[in-house]
Amino acid sequence: MRDLALSKVYQLLEPGPVVLLTTAHSGRPNVMTMSWHMMIEFEPPQVACVVSNANYSFAALRATGECVIGLPARKLATKVVKVGNSSGRDLDKFAAFGLTTMPATRIKPPLIADCFANLECTVTNRRLVNQYKLFILEVLKAWTDPAQKNPKTIHHHGYGKFVVDGKTLRL
Amino acid sequence: MRDLALSKVYQLLEPGPVVLLTTAHSGRPNVMTMSWHMMIEFEPPQVACVVSNANYSFAALRATGECVIGLPARKLATKVVKVGNSSGRDLDKFAAFGLTTMPATRIKPPLIADCFANLECTVTNRRLVNQYKLFILEVLKAWTDPAQKNPKTIHHHGYGKFVVDGKTLRL
Repeated sequence: MRDLALSKVYQLLEPGPVVLLTTAHSGRPNVMTMSWHMMIEFEPPQVACVVSNANYSFAALRATGECVIGLPARKLATKVVKVGNSSGRDLDKFAAFGLTTMPATRIKPPLIADCFANLECTVTNRRLVNQYKLFILEVLKAWTDPAQKNPKTIHHHGYGKFVVDGKTLRL
Repeated sequence: MRDLALSKVYQLLEPGPVVLLTTAHSGRPNVMTMSWHMMIEFEPPQVACVVSNANYSFAALRATGECVIGLPARKLATKVVKVGNSSGRDLDKFAAFGLTTMPATRIKPPLIADCFANLECTVTNRRLVNQYKLFILEVLKAWTDPAQKNPKTIHHHGYGKFVVDGKTLRL
């Protein structure tokens, strides 16, 4: 994984890709699939996201205030769906679905080596957590995998329908 | 424009498309381009979005608490960029760029007839407006254009680079 300038993080999340979110609670890492996130500030990059309290990750994120956002490319799509359709309450999803973790540098939740980018985040504002399960995150450190060139991301349209990135326009 | 069930609204915004946002302040409508938005609740659909106070639309949205989110397909991409690169402070962007408005039914800002979907929204929470310019919206009414079948949306990657929807996966 190679260092990515924090000023470029918005280019990863602004297009709305499905992402993976890792947490670590009492030493036990977990991962979920997430589509409800957005950039809210360029630099330092800040991100808003919704993690439902129906997700096992909610308690971990609220308790520890730390997470990694991993960006999976198209080739990980089937694993991303499996992660989204299972719960860390009763499963080690990394082992079950063959995802490789790597230590983060600033926080305890792991990076996902299979992702083309990873963002180490801390929770910086909890004012809308109770009402909307909406967390404000700051990205402390960003990584990209130089071996994955021009990755195509996936975008969720509901009910298992995903659209893969197509042509690029420069306008 | 045809009525769309509110339960399906998330399928439009969750994939992260670039959208248009209309407001109406003191009887004068305006439109901006927006990429910082996310779903936060399915039904009634609620959406979070960031409208910078550098945008002329910020004051209108804060004062009136009403906006329409219009979803443009790929064929509108050049107009979407022009809307994003100009200000309603000194321009009627609808006239300048040839966008056709239609009256909304529940709020004062107009629908955009050129968009394949339009969402009539009101601001329901302002707690993060001062700090992050983050508004919580509820979608009161949703419309789709039956003449635009399987529209491809565009996703912003920064600096005028956009990616158009590609293949669909069903997983």
